[in-house]
Amino acid sequence: MPVTRLYGIIPPLITPFDTKGNLSVDRLSGIVEFTKPYVHGYYLCGTYGLGPLMRTDQRKKVAERVAELVGGEKLIVVHVGSADTETAVELAKHAQDIGAHAVASVPPFYYHHSETHILNFFRELVDSVSIPVYAYNNPPRVGYPITPELALKLKEVGVAGIKDSSFDVQAFIDYKVTLGEDFDVVVGTEALMLPTYVLGARAFIPGMSNYAPEIVFKLFKALENRDFENAAKIQYKINKVRRQVQRLGPTIPLVYLALKLRGVDAGFPRKPFLPAPHEVQEILKSYIEELLEGVET
Amino acid sequence: MPVTRLYGIIPPLITPFDTKGNLSVDRLSGIVEFTKPYVHGYYLCGTYGLGPLMRTDQRKKVAERVAELVGGEKLIVVHVGSADTETAVELAKHAQDIGAHAVASVPPFYYHHSETHILNFFRELVDSVSIPVYAYNNPPRVGYPITPELALKLKEVGVAGIKDSSFDVQAFIDYKVTLGEDFDVVVGTEALMLPTYVLGARAFIPGMSNYAPEIVFKLFKALENRDFENAAKIQYKINKVRRQVQRLGPTIPLVYLALKLRGVDAGFPRKPFLPAPHEVQEILKSYIEELLEGVET
Amino acid sequence: MPVTRLYGIIPPLITPFDTKGNLSVDRLSGIVEFTKPYVHGYYLCGTYGLGPLMRTDQRKKVAERVAELVGGEKLIVVHVGSADTETAVELAKHAQDIGAHAVASVPPFYYHHSETHILNFFRELVDSVSIPVYAYNNPPRVGYPITPELALKLKEVGVAGIKDSSFDVQAFIDYKVTLGEDFDVVVGTEALMLPTYVLGARAFIPGMSNYAPEIVFKLFKALENRDFENAAKIQYKINKVRRQVQRLGPTIPLVYLALKLRGVDAGFPRKPFLPAPHEVQEILKSYIEELLEGVET
Amino acid sequence: MPVTRLYGIIPPLITPFDTKGNLSVDRLSGIVEFTKPYVHGYYLCGTYGLGPLMRTDQRKKVAERVAELVGGEKLIVVHVGSADTETAVELAKHAQDIGAHAVASVPPFYYHHSETHILNFFRELVDSVSIPVYAYNNPPRVGYPITPELALKLKEVGVAGIKDSSFDVQAFIDYKVTLGEDFDVVVGTEALMLPTYVLGARAFIPGMSNYAPEIVFKLFKALENRDFENAAKIQYKINKVRRQVQRLGPTIPLVYLALKLRGVDAGFPRKPFLPAPHEVQEILKSYIEELLEGVET
Repeated sequence: MPVTRLYGIIPPLITPFDTKGNLSVDRLSGIVEFTKPYVHGYYLCGTYGLGPLMRTDQRKKVAERVAELVGGEKLIVVHVGSADTETAVELAKHAQDIGAHAVASVPPFYYHHSETHILNFFRELVDSVSIPVYAYNNPPRVGYPITPELALKLKEVGVAGIKDSSFDVQAFIDYKVTLGEDFDVVVGTEALMLPTYVLGARAFIPGMSNYAPEIVFKLFKALENRDFENAAKIQYKINKVRRQVQRLGPTIPLVYLALKLRGVDAGFPRKPFLPAPHEVQEILKSYIEELLEGVET
Repeated sequence: MPVTRLYGIIPPLITPFDTKGNLSVDRLSGIVEFTKPYVHGYYLCGTYGLGPLMRTDQRKKVAERVAELVGGEKLIVVHVGSADTETAVELAKHAQDIGAHAVASVPPFYYHHSETHILNFFRELVDSVSIPVYAYNNPPRVGYPITPELALKLKEVGVAGIKDSSFDVQAFIDYKVTLGEDFDVVVGTEALMLPTYVLGARAFIPGMSNYAPEIVFKLFKALENRDFENAAKIQYKINKVRRQVQRLGPTIPLVYLALKLRGVDAGFPRKPFLPAPHEVQEILKSYIEELLEGVET
Repeated sequence: MPVTRLYGIIPPLITPFDTKGNLSVDRLSGIVEFTKPYVHGYYLCGTYGLGPLMRTDQRKKVAERVAELVGGEKLIVVHVGSADTETAVELAKHAQDIGAHAVASVPPFYYHHSETHILNFFRELVDSVSIPVYAYNNPPRVGYPITPELALKLKEVGVAGIKDSSFDVQAFIDYKVTLGEDFDVVVGTEALMLPTYVLGARAFIPGMSNYAPEIVFKLFKALENRDFENAAKIQYKINKVRRQVQRLGPTIPLVYLALKLRGVDAGFPRKPFLPAPHEVQEILKSYIEELLEGVET
Repeated sequence: MPVTRLYGIIPPLITPFDTKGNLSVDRLSGIVEFTKPYVHGYYLCGTYGLGPLMRTDQRKKVAERVAELVGGEKLIVVHVGSADTETAVELAKHAQDIGAHAVASVPPFYYHHSETHILNFFRELVDSVSIPVYAYNNPPRVGYPITPELALKLKEVGVAGIKDSSFDVQAFIDYKVTLGEDFDVVVGTEALMLPTYVLGARAFIPGMSNYAPEIVFKLFKALENRDFENAAKIQYKINKVRRQVQRLGPTIPLVYLALKLRGVDAGFPRKPFLPAPHEVQEILKSYIEELLEGVET
């Protein structure tokens, strides 16, 4: 079932490892169980999901396992971005095989590639599968942006849409203006849901849905009900807590800890990431409580 | 009549010079006449208004003349930002004398100043007048940003609000979250009116209102009527034309030409700015027509 | 006596103000007296000299007074850079009138100007005087660089050379490669004297010569004697202390304090700069002693 | 034979692939044969060598084959940098097993890691082998720099030195000042050999030595003979041609073409890199001829 437009809340699922650094597929079910009622799909092996620092075989196992767990009930988007073309193509084919609805990819990272190289990279991806291929814009991680002009050329080689994690609402508008209605623009954060929803965004990939999916879902419902006043209140609460959490240290390890505090064993991140220090547990707990206050969980 | 919160459309008025580089105060009346029905006030000698490259006596004359022209009917905010404290203070006192409702200032530019220096700069400004003092965040022009944390300290020394030209909606939220309800946050562009309005913004300083005030006003009215669907359409049209205009060359000289095309003699910018080249006249005209299509003028 | 190539140590002289913020021309003689034996000229009203935040009449007074003090014995280069063309031209003419050997100017700051605007700015400067005009590259202060390609166009409109404060030795080479032997490239720091000297640099504008002119002069003499081994030792000492001093706070106020510690009354910087805090006096003193250890003063 | 200080010309060897994207180990001997007389060692699977976009098994094969080819005659440094710790450690152990004299690693890329994570990454590397571990500073590729302060902490966990590709001579000095004599600082480019040699650099990792090893070696010999005047001439020629080559397109594919023009079959780069277009062949040839004019080859 290829999709042409993503919809709803599609969290960038984190990936559980054990203390020895082995992939811990068994822990995926707990995280999926916990988040499932509040999401429309999953974005696998993305930046939150540690895909870019995992082995190819590990990335495949995560996609396989989550596809099994959701059994067609949810959208599955697999991030296949890599430093090289071959790995990305291999992962895209595999994603299609396990029933993913779409794949997404950062442009090849580490090197700052020329437009010719980038277009060829995505052309090979598009040619390797029949499901939609999304480009994923994340300038701080990749080292260079996907400008609207580049996105237009990506559209011409068959890219179906973009996941934008630039945190730049003007860029969202520029994409829409430049790329037209038949190119999907998905917002890669919970921090800008209201301001982009009113501009037409309907799909979101929010890291916070890993550990507080209820509040993000509540915001999405307020948006769908056009209750923008209430949406603004929730948006402000989300962004306030986001900032507080970011001050505690690197975000990704904190998500594992936050899940533990929510009662879900998400294991540990892969190295070079290290588990969040114990000292932040109490304060993180209070932030989550603040976030969920008044939200049915 | 000190205000505590700005409201509405307050364009950053451009400043007319003659071909010899002399200030052309006489031409101000035409621009004010043209824009007045569609604005709630004027922001004088800002970045669009060329304040930072004008002589102190010229900046004063502009403030005096516009204050005369609007005779209390409109909000007057005078930008007094300078590389040095003395000039900014002198301009602030003068602004108060001619009846301005507020002053605004970039942090001192050219040098990258320490927090201590910046706080002292604004403290002296605040102490020199009884009208509200706004800080003006424009990182590309100034060389450094006003972070929410710095803004909080500015609030403590008496700064009333911020004019944010960072084009960063997340920063808008961060300011609101950090600074609370008793600190005004004004949006320094027409490009983000809808996404910031739904987040609580009620005052805008849009350069486009110099030459197409009708469309910006129409957007503001749609926002005030909570007609966000129509607002989105207008917002997209505005941003599309903005991008087109920006591709023609430096924006500020184009505003003078656009006014001429609208039938208003706005003179010329001050050097080092040069008049926009004749070649772009026809294409600029077509952009303006696209912008105003279906708008009552 | 127009020069076509600058030579030697030409410190960017700081400008003394009194506690009320008034220019204190009387204090200039002490600073000149202190530095004169160890320098070949003075660079006036540059970034160290606070020119970009001084009034036009103040900038002129500094140039007049220093010209009087050195009476033709030393090179005088007056920095005339401003946000606007008119002020820069006025200052350039004045510099020529008081006997300066050359003027220098940053490209117009605050706004990020187009190439056309920048070239016109320098063309007007060149046309206004018969002494050489240098461009001054300082990207962090100005907001944009003078690339070698832009410098080549500046050369074509008559610019005689460049003062480069980019701290980028590769840029120094690129300038030389692109601009040829008949375009002067002057290094705007003491931190890179050895590595640029071996590449052909013969003129330096070192802020440290304000308060420790002996050590910079000693380095220059070692370079002129091709004693690169000793030069490396001095260069390392200079850079080590530079870093230590920079950690104490904003550099410019520290220079005033350092001069006081050397027995020279240099007054105070102009606001928004504030005097360096008393607390750093002892540690700054020890750094200066380290710097001058073994140097005849 | 662990080394404690690298010495001489140690080019970042490119890695040959065939047109199908398979590693072409057979072609390595031709490149090694061609360069061997003019180098002191090889830096394998670095940025030029495409290590960060190769599979782990491919990276190992390159190290094995080159180790065989040079049979202990040359220094072998293997770059093991990766997005994850496990891969880097695996490659470091393998490098030690095949007789490498040292390993080097960028800090983990893609994510912007905290200091704690970076230090732990290098600690694990150091603990996994008995040969020296170098850190490799390449901010544009990695997304963040190794500051002198961070390098000092890396030294404390056992890192032996740094390969600096920041193109920043002041950073070279800062490293030396901060890290002391018992920490090696290696310069990662041919573009700054003279200015860093006079500051104490004795080892260089120059990409140009892949296709014009004679000229880089000639520069090194001039430096070793303290013939800095001649060295400056060669340095200028090198940098001039570097700039010309860079204007032809992405550098890495051009190196493969340049080797072909020198009569060495280096195959092709790995995708997303694509072979340099045929059109540039003639002009590239003329640049190489300019570079080698008057150099014995």
